[in-house]
Amino acid sequence: MNIPSSPYKRIVIIGGGFAGISIAKKLRNKKYQVVLLDKHNYHTFQPLLYQVATGGLEPDSIAYPIRKVIQEYDNFYFRLADVKEIDAKQNLILSDIGDLHYDYLIIATGTKTNYFGNKEIERNSMSMKTIPQSLNLRSYILENFEQALLADDEIERENLMNFVLVGGGPTGVELAGALAEMKKAILPKDYPDLNIDKMQINLIQSGDRILNTMTEKSSEASEKFLKSLGVSIYKNVRVTGYDGHVVTTNGNLSFNTSTVIWTAGVQGKLISGLNKDAIFERIDRIKVDEFNKVKGYENIFAIGDIAIMETEKYPQGHPQMAQVAIQQGVLLAENLIKLRKNEPLKPFEYNDKGSMATIGRNKAVVDLPKYHFNGVFAWFVWMFVHLISLIGFKNKAVVFLNWVYNYIRFDREARLIIRPYKRKAMQQSFTTDEI
Amino acid sequence: MNIPSSPYKRIVIIGGGFAGISIAKKLRNKKYQVVLLDKHNYHTFQPLLYQVATGGLEPDSIAYPIRKVIQEYDNFYFRLADVKEIDAKQNLILSDIGDLHYDYLIIATGTKTNYFGNKEIERNSMSMKTIPQSLNLRSYILENFEQALLADDEIERENLMNFVLVGGGPTGVELAGALAEMKKAILPKDYPDLNIDKMQINLIQSGDRILNTMTEKSSEASEKFLKSLGVSIYKNVRVTGYDGHVVTTNGNLSFNTSTVIWTAGVQGKLISGLNKDAIFERIDRIKVDEFNKVKGYENIFAIGDIAIMETEKYPQGHPQMAQVAIQQGVLLAENLIKLRKNEPLKPFEYNDKGSMATIGRNKAVVDLPKYHFNGVFAWFVWMFVHLISLIGFKNKAVVFLNWVYNYIRFDREARLIIRPYKRKAMQQSFTTDEI
Repeated sequence: MNIPSSPYKRIVIIGGGFAGISIAKKLRNKKYQVVLLDKHNYHTFQPLLYQVATGGLEPDSIAYPIRKVIQEYDNFYFRLADVKEIDAKQNLILSDIGDLHYDYLIIATGTKTNYFGNKEIERNSMSMKTIPQSLNLRSYILENFEQALLADDEIERENLMNFVLVGGGPTGVELAGALAEMKKAILPKDYPDLNIDKMQINLIQSGDRILNTMTEKSSEASEKFLKSLGVSIYKNVRVTGYDGHVVTTNGNLSFNTSTVIWTAGVQGKLISGLNKDAIFERIDRIKVDEFNKVKGYENIFAIGDIAIMETEKYPQGHPQMAQVAIQQGVLLAENLIKLRKNEPLKPFEYNDKGSMATIGRNKAVVDLPKYHFNGVFAWFVWMFVHLISLIGFKNKAVVFLNWVYNYIRFDREARLIIRPYKRKAMQQSFTTDEI
Repeated sequence: MNIPSSPYKRIVIIGGGFAGISIAKKLRNKKYQVVLLDKHNYHTFQPLLYQVATGGLEPDSIAYPIRKVIQEYDNFYFRLADVKEIDAKQNLILSDIGDLHYDYLIIATGTKTNYFGNKEIERNSMSMKTIPQSLNLRSYILENFEQALLADDEIERENLMNFVLVGGGPTGVELAGALAEMKKAILPKDYPDLNIDKMQINLIQSGDRILNTMTEKSSEASEKFLKSLGVSIYKNVRVTGYDGHVVTTNGNLSFNTSTVIWTAGVQGKLISGLNKDAIFERIDRIKVDEFNKVKGYENIFAIGDIAIMETEKYPQGHPQMAQVAIQQGVLLAENLIKLRKNEPLKPFEYNDKGSMATIGRNKAVVDLPKYHFNGVFAWFVWMFVHLISLIGFKNKAVVFLNWVYNYIRFDREARLIIRPYKRKAMQQSFTTDEI
């Protein structure tokens, strides 16, 4: 892989998400050689992908070149690589651009959409975990309306304007809210010859409340907000199939629709080669101890969404959130430095700073450790926190400018169909998270 | 095509570029039914495509949703359509979404890259006439450097860092300048383990000066600017072939390179069905009279880059520039209104407001009808004119913000490889202008 040799030990990090970037930053000039690998040359700020998909933001403003993060770090290398396998016996990773020896391996590959083995749903529905997928989704949503104009009968037209979102987590809720705002403010003006009142947004949740990782108060508030925007919410309903036309469920409910957006679950992006004992099956997460060390290995670590650390306080692992990933990345960097100095390691303890979700204009829910609130103030808090969390001054400024503009003008201008694939081809590209 | 019937006559406009948008705007609520067709749902500000390709701007900020332009226009319809044929006898156009009858047809399809029949060059080189092509080019440029890191021998590495631009018009000159600035300010920081000094930018021009539609003074100045940025300029050289590895020319010169960017010519995007007499062959432009009426037809017009109007002052037609397209669009709208009132039509006369090109930071050339100047002031004029010409307040603001940031920070942050296709597939998608 053309990485020069070094007197220092080599740390290889796979993945430039929140976890990978946070450990990389902390390992700057720390007497380790660090190699960061990712399939993309940019870091994605995933919490705002839904705004790219719904025309509120440009993709470039929520992404950041990884090479720019590590500019001027000594003994630090980035390579655009797809890691195919881990050969733990020989301390090697195998990738599409060659092999690489590691002294310490950090797996921070994150997650992809989980269809729980249902190939039919995987083939016919869309997901939104990467920037290309969000752009595809944006094109797909808009192409539905372009097609609806051409539809010969009312039923076909209504199917094209019926959106079914499966999964009532933050992604599903935020997408549903954004679609509802498009329905209200933008689509009637863009498509005066369509009856946009016929557009339906259906949110299906398998559990008994949406946003079920937040407080009940927040769940109720978000439900109220969504309903006020005209979103139909179905709880305790499990989607069992979707053939591209009809969504079937475990009950009597069914939906005729051209668009299913699947946000009902995630699974780790595993790399083959690890022992079976180290893998939590079905969700493909990697079992780690309190130091994020992978079960059964001495020099392999996993951090962020792909890691599952079962603790007393979190018997089913920590929530799969940016905060956990960042904190694990920071701590592991500190522990690796301690390791070099033969100092005792510090176990991970999650500092829960709270969570939040936005539903729309002036509508958000915020759970802080001690306070729970919603509405206009929550919405400003949500915007502020997301704005300062973006990497780079220019991204912050451009996103801020877009938000101010969108707020004042009730508009979302980034509604270009920029990846105008044939619907079928597009659907296929959606089902792989490899894009 | 599901367009309602109307008591007014129907004008069908094909193409939403400068010409198509300018006539559309002028035809607002003018007792005509207007149908605007385009393969994209957005208008592209082509003069800034090179900044998208070189990471200076995001694609969304130089594009604008066509539906937003015509929002609230009465009796005005946009359809996303690819027009395949004109059936002039029946006053019909045939498209991928069905047929449509017209009373007046306006062809404003613009141009695509002209390879002058050289299929080998078409297959192996890149062009930059659309937003997707610019994004592909951006990815391709950056992928060259990622690959150079992996190259085993020096020759391969240098080929990957050798850029050959064919064509010394504004596009070639502006791209060469932008690449040179990337070489200076960004690439050495992004790729500290590559010797960026080895990067070459070669600009090949078949004529005896670059920017040969501008004044000699501007040609000389731009040449000086490019040379000061390290660009090698070859004049009176004609590229005869490129097999993906070696560029051959009509002289002794040859170049080993992985990247040829072809900006050496354009040809009209013709739609089949017009009489042969109406077509100017080789460059595929449509012959029009002084009212932009297509030769041999009474109700078909062509405007903008695809039209060729041979006049006393412009015996070989007007320059293919935004200004001509806009002025022809505006005049034709007025003439169509006159036609309805049975008033005499006004012939087209081009009001030459001048032309300009930018080479880099503080470096531009401006030809006004009476004044020619270059340097810092020209550069500010260039920026100002392009900024005010962008459609939409938000685009103006975002582009301005990006330029200020890039200027202060010597940076171009939009360097994401967002369409990471396999090189081969990418090259192929490049050669079709249909993307």
